[in-house]
Amino acid sequence: MVYLTRKEHFNAAHKLSNPNWSEEKNWEVFGKCSNKNWHGHNYELYVTVKGKPNPDTGFIINLKDLSVLIREEVCLKLDHKNLNVDVPFLNDILPSTENVAIKIWEILSPKIIEMGAQLHSIKLYETESNFVEYFGEN
Amino acid sequence: MVYLTRKEHFNAAHKLSNPNWSEEKNWEVFGKCSNKNWHGHNYELYVTVKGKPNPDTGFIINLKDLSVLIREEVCLKLDHKNLNVDVPFLNDILPSTENVAIKIWEILSPKIIEMGAQLHSIKLYETESNFVEYFGEN
Amino acid sequence: MVYLTRKEHFNAAHKLSNPNWSEEKNWEVFGKCSNKNWHGHNYELYVTVKGKPNPDTGFIINLKDLSVLIREEVCLKLDHKNLNVDVPFLNDILPSTENVAIKIWEILSPKIIEMGAQLHSIKLYETESNFVEYFGEN
Amino acid sequence: MVYLTRKEHFNAAHKLSNPNWSEEKNWEVFGKCSNKNWHGHNYELYVTVKGKPNPDTGFIINLKDLSVLIREEVCLKLDHKNLNVDVPFLNDILPSTENVAIKIWEILSPKIIEMGAQLHSIKLYETESNFVEYFGEN
Amino acid sequence: MVYLTRKEHFNAAHKLSNPNWSEEKNWEVFGKCSNKNWHGHNYELYVTVKGKPNPDTGFIINLKDLSVLIREEVCLKLDHKNLNVDVPFLNDILPSTENVAIKIWEILSPKIIEMGAQLHSIKLYETESNFVEYFGEN
Amino acid sequence: MVYLTRKEHFNAAHKLSNPNWSEEKNWEVFGKCSNKNWHGHNYELYVTVKGKPNPDTGFIINLKDLSVLIREEVCLKLDHKNLNVDVPFLNDILPSTENVAIKIWEILSPKIIEMGAQLHSIKLYETESNFVEYFGEN
Repeated sequence: MVYLTRKEHFNAAHKLSNPNWSEEKNWEVFGKCSNKNWHGHNYELYVTVKGKPNPDTGFIINLKDLSVLIREEVCLKLDHKNLNVDVPFLNDILPSTENVAIKIWEILSPKIIEMGAQLHSIKLYETESNFVEYFGEN
Repeated sequence: MVYLTRKEHFNAAHKLSNPNWSEEKNWEVFGKCSNKNWHGHNYELYVTVKGKPNPDTGFIINLKDLSVLIREEVCLKLDHKNLNVDVPFLNDILPSTENVAIKIWEILSPKIIEMGAQLHSIKLYETESNFVEYFGEN
Repeated sequence: MVYLTRKEHFNAAHKLSNPNWSEEKNWEVFGKCSNKNWHGHNYELYVTVKGKPNPDTGFIINLKDLSVLIREEVCLKLDHKNLNVDVPFLNDILPSTENVAIKIWEILSPKIIEMGAQLHSIKLYETESNFVEYFGEN
Repeated sequence: MVYLTRKEHFNAAHKLSNPNWSEEKNWEVFGKCSNKNWHGHNYELYVTVKGKPNPDTGFIINLKDLSVLIREEVCLKLDHKNLNVDVPFLNDILPSTENVAIKIWEILSPKIIEMGAQLHSIKLYETESNFVEYFGEN
Repeated sequence: MVYLTRKEHFNAAHKLSNPNWSEEKNWEVFGKCSNKNWHGHNYELYVTVKGKPNPDTGFIINLKDLSVLIREEVCLKLDHKNLNVDVPFLNDILPSTENVAIKIWEILSPKIIEMGAQLHSIKLYETESNFVEYFGEN
Repeated sequence: MVYLTRKEHFNAAHKLSNPNWSEEKNWEVFGKCSNKNWHGHNYELYVTVKGKPNPDTGFIINLKDLSVLIREEVCLKLDHKNLNVDVPFLNDILPSTENVAIKIWEILSPKIIEMGAQLHSIKLYETESNFVEYFGEN
């Protein structure tokens, strides 16, 4: 097994705020991240796939195809968007980095299998000091 | 003259949209940056001051004091905020990186003179690929 | 399981020198790292915790709380200190990056369990070219 | 077990082109990477070894020795070279990042065992957006 | 005046070799950079323009337009190319970082004037340790 | 004129403490930087020279020669050293980043003139958030 990673990025607004809670409770738990007028981040997304190199190409997966897949299925839907408002696949969850990473996994995993490889991990940086990794359910 | 730089950061939402223009015109000029539901960035701010090192300290300016100044006068007012809505000193301008950098200069320059040094430049990164520098009016 | 990482840092002096060895033997093994007058580094510390996102918050652990924990229990005790002299929990060991990472694990692991998550790894950069990872005893 | 990583680098030319295929087929699969006059990269190589810290040194492996090993056995043979033409150990394969990482593993693994540690992974960056990891056959 | 910078990149092969010199003389002056089978780099290009922000947009220049200009006029011609062989505008010079930066200036400067701004500098990284800046003839 | 920059680095211990002041006064001014048992940093040093490219080489200065000069005259004397104790050319000054940068200028400037170029600036990073630039007396 070899593991290949492609980095892409998107810039988005969000806020962390539980709609079932009062503004005070949200401030207590989420602090400045709950600012009702939003804030935002430059997100960096690392998608790691695994497989065996194809003897004809030396590739696990064609990087151009992987890059196009991530851009079309993920970045195009998140870039310059509001994660709480503009993104159908995030509609019913709090857009914490954890939850966004899980949703990105769910979108990409079946499509990478179709391409003949396996998704190994989603690593999502919210800032250079905070990031999340998700390896699927198992 | 020696030039000393301190880096700080803030995360904010904004959009680029001229209120005197139609939505179509804004899209034409600003593209996805005009998304009405906002997007956001991890901004990195480099403040450069100049002066002669004090023979007793070896310092142009005390870095701790400079850091506190930048955090209190700038970052606290911009971090986890919406640059179009939440920031009094940006009220009447489009929050392009250029304009935000100029406003930060106007806030910091007189205070750095009071501290016995001179502001040399404001360098503001919107993303790692886009940044602005401002050296004052002269 | 989702893995969440927080980065913090500290700047410290140290030397690598086995007190049971001659100066020559120390030089032979540790080279310039054994300089008797110390040298130092900007250490970068990545603390990774794992758990399931809380449905109310989307969080494995509250990042602010994790950051405060790392700063109070680790960085405050190491930052602007001499790792061989000033740090009680490093008293009886050589402050190699390996050993410092293990000690940081031992300090943080029980406290992160109290916070409802699990420590997954300590990653400690001594320089951008040298770093260590520790995943606990198992 | 503690994991220690050393970063080294090399700058090299290569192209991706299967000699059994027509120029059209190569272009279709490899795109601009198949340019017959080559292109090149600044490769960054992360070598991770694992073991238990030696109680006399605090080290898994002496970093200086590890650095010398990587430079002599790998970087000296790849730096400022053409990966398709100048490197005997890459002679019979396509120099994709995947394949180069596997070959580096094969060179370093037995030598690191001789030094009393184990090779854990080879991580090879072709660009800051594309990298490969290899953990050996098991 | 405000200064706005856009970063782009290209990956290319080259060698440093004066055709009027013997192989020995080239080796003496250029060392491993003269390897006859080429080597290569991930080049990073920073283009800085200056001007006054337009009151309607807050922009010195539209960043999208600047990015498209740099990609079409420079990166497309250099990316995945051999700088000694494949690039008409570098035909008659040694492709040192200095010379490539000057040629990029000559291409971009008149086009940026047409866009209503001025080119201030070309900064070209060959590696993260080596870079060149050019500010034009004056 | 073209400007060429070479980056080198050194790791060192220091403290900021004016020997004419009480421990309290030093703490008041320098805070944790005055810790009597030292602390340390990974310093990054950027040396920028300027000149006209030589038509035979495309170089302002031979980068290998510049790198050797910086390593021998500066890094060898500072790396894995205590800046307050081990470095003759820093003996009579406080080793603030400002003062170290000025001293490095004084060492390198005449030697770069001998090599046929001019020193333009010394940029010295103490941490990624704090750095100093010096352009000489004029």
